[in-house]
Amino acid sequence: MIRDDDFIQSKDVPGPTKEEIRCLVMCKAQISSEDIVVDVGCGSGGLTVESAQRAKKVIALDKNPEAIELTSKNLIKHGLQRKVELVEGDALNLIENLPSFDVLIIGGSSGDLPLIISRGYQKLKTNGRIVVTSILLETRVEAVETFKKLGMTLEVVEVTVAKGKQMKRGTMMMGRNPITIITALNNKN
Amino acid sequence: MIRDDDFIQSKDVPGPTKEEIRCLVMCKAQISSEDIVVDVGCGSGGLTVESAQRAKKVIALDKNPEAIELTSKNLIKHGLQRKVELVEGDALNLIENLPSFDVLIIGGSSGDLPLIISRGYQKLKTNGRIVVTSILLETRVEAVETFKKLGMTLEVVEVTVAKGKQMKRGTMMMGRNPITIITALNNKN
Amino acid sequence: MIRDDDFIQSKDVPGPTKEEIRCLVMCKAQISSEDIVVDVGCGSGGLTVESAQRAKKVIALDKNPEAIELTSKNLIKHGLQRKVELVEGDALNLIENLPSFDVLIIGGSSGDLPLIISRGYQKLKTNGRIVVTSILLETRVEAVETFKKLGMTLEVVEVTVAKGKQMKRGTMMMGRNPITIITALNNKN
Amino acid sequence: MIRDDDFIQSKDVPGPTKEEIRCLVMCKAQISSEDIVVDVGCGSGGLTVESAQRAKKVIALDKNPEAIELTSKNLIKHGLQRKVELVEGDALNLIENLPSFDVLIIGGSSGDLPLIISRGYQKLKTNGRIVVTSILLETRVEAVETFKKLGMTLEVVEVTVAKGKQMKRGTMMMGRNPITIITALNNKN
Repeated sequence: MIRDDDFIQSKDVPGPTKEEIRCLVMCKAQISSEDIVVDVGCGSGGLTVESAQRAKKVIALDKNPEAIELTSKNLIKHGLQRKVELVEGDALNLIENLPSFDVLIIGGSSGDLPLIISRGYQKLKTNGRIVVTSILLETRVEAVETFKKLGMTLEVVEVTVAKGKQMKRGTMMMGRNPITIITALNNKN
Repeated sequence: MIRDDDFIQSKDVPGPTKEEIRCLVMCKAQISSEDIVVDVGCGSGGLTVESAQRAKKVIALDKNPEAIELTSKNLIKHGLQRKVELVEGDALNLIENLPSFDVLIIGGSSGDLPLIISRGYQKLKTNGRIVVTSILLETRVEAVETFKKLGMTLEVVEVTVAKGKQMKRGTMMMGRNPITIITALNNKN
Repeated sequence: MIRDDDFIQSKDVPGPTKEEIRCLVMCKAQISSEDIVVDVGCGSGGLTVESAQRAKKVIALDKNPEAIELTSKNLIKHGLQRKVELVEGDALNLIENLPSFDVLIIGGSSGDLPLIISRGYQKLKTNGRIVVTSILLETRVEAVETFKKLGMTLEVVEVTVAKGKQMKRGTMMMGRNPITIITALNNKN
Repeated sequence: MIRDDDFIQSKDVPGPTKEEIRCLVMCKAQISSEDIVVDVGCGSGGLTVESAQRAKKVIALDKNPEAIELTSKNLIKHGLQRKVELVEGDALNLIENLPSFDVLIIGGSSGDLPLIISRGYQKLKTNGRIVVTSILLETRVEAVETFKKLGMTLEVVEVTVAKGKQMKRGTMMMGRNPITIITALNNKN
């Protein structure tokens, strides 16, 4: 995986998603070199860059122009800009006009998570996957309930990571915010 | 429990120990109104104040004069200064000259944890308890190994707390550093 | 705290709530010797017994007759039966006929959590507290949203505990299910 | 990642390492198709199979003949047996006779972790990696201290996973044992 420090960061844009969470999201997303991936709420571009390393093509959306710019910089830094289409705007509107895709990654949803999932589901290819990362109690439940309504096979994993910091007197464990990863598989034909 | 905000805090002194951890340490320490408690590495005085609310007497030690001063302020704020003796200095030396006690709480040990435990054990009354809070990988093991050598009955509990922060769009879970609480009971007669 | 092993247990009844969680619930509930406590979904009686040690009176409810019986046994074991009224039935119906109380503890809610909270709130004295323990993603959000609607001051704490098991070769950390404790204070006059 | 259920399991052999931990170990190990990987304490073969999917060659060691047999079955199930050499015996003795390798994964060490690391380090190629998964308090510290002595760049990550189980009334979060992953990079030339 790319190290957290190897992403250009900005105080005005959240992320990048931490290395261990990027790793788990990539495992859950199971991106192959034939896949088209849509990344909703790309932020600093952590998951966009990782997806671009694995996919045929990535479409990254964010309503924040600074996020689009920062993701662009990180794609250039890792030589992946040609694989990624960056679109500034509201995922809720944009997603309906996208071509069908294999993987939908949702990191940020601005309160529209159920609708983004439902509309994304319409565009999801057979055996496609939707992966939601959630830091809010509420969005976890919204994701689970929406996936259930759509009849998708779902998995919920909460991950708490602490990272060791070498101090003079030993290894201090520094806690991170827990993150819940909800993955759903498309079963429709 | 006293809320974290109800302690006077200083950038130069660690602590106070967070409410949930104070709560668990108090449960493990089982302080009664007849007990004499020694608090090693009192820092901001979080555990000193809580102990003083329950014990007959508390002796709080810290090598940092600013910690002693801050603990003093917090004791005064909670009206408990009369129950507590504050001693600035090295626990390793001080502990040998203390009267025997019922409970030994060790939050900070400056690298001398095994010796502080061993010397504290000499002063520990029958059915007394030693409670160590550890944020370092290494001190957890030092505590466990020292308690085993002393033949004490020991318990190890690692606690990870995340606290909800109300944001516009929901409840964001903010992670804290995991803390390990090692409790040992004196079985000698 | 009472040790987990010091409760009579049954395969047919959930609980008792683990020691560390009982400890934290008691800290959050802040039960005084003048308080009347209602325990909804008492299960094995873990929180009922702890509450009875601190309160003036406890009313414990459960729709499962085996839970009522097991709680009764645990109260007798700890000599606290005289302080507790045990009622078999649906909390949703029972709660409206209870006298007003200081503390409402909700461990089990059979899917009626928002209504139990709302009806309990009607009976809650000024400065009373409601403490919900949740093991389901969904009930956490139900509790938070209901407390917000009622205008109560709320706190959300997720607690993950791992307990050390002494093996031949070291201390194995055994994970427990994470539990979320949601506490709300009554601000009304 | 391979799902946990897609491994043949046995009550007599620990493992397989859970999906999320396998995922993180693979991320940390950074195995390329040119790499030779040694897997110490292969158990059910979870990490052996994952490594074999990515590496040029894997040598898997276990002192338990049942583990060797189960790993063999899982390799056959996933069509990877030709890439893996299985050796029954004590890693401490075996490791000295192995050819040099790029990645050393240590899941089980039978109490000889510091020596296995030290001897493995002698065989580690430039820019090679050692990844230790630890479930014991003690082995975490042994790994950290040994890596420090060897002058390796080290990283400590503690991971706690809870997995959602769909129940009638919601998503119950089931805790797993916390696992610490210690990764060290070879800086020598």
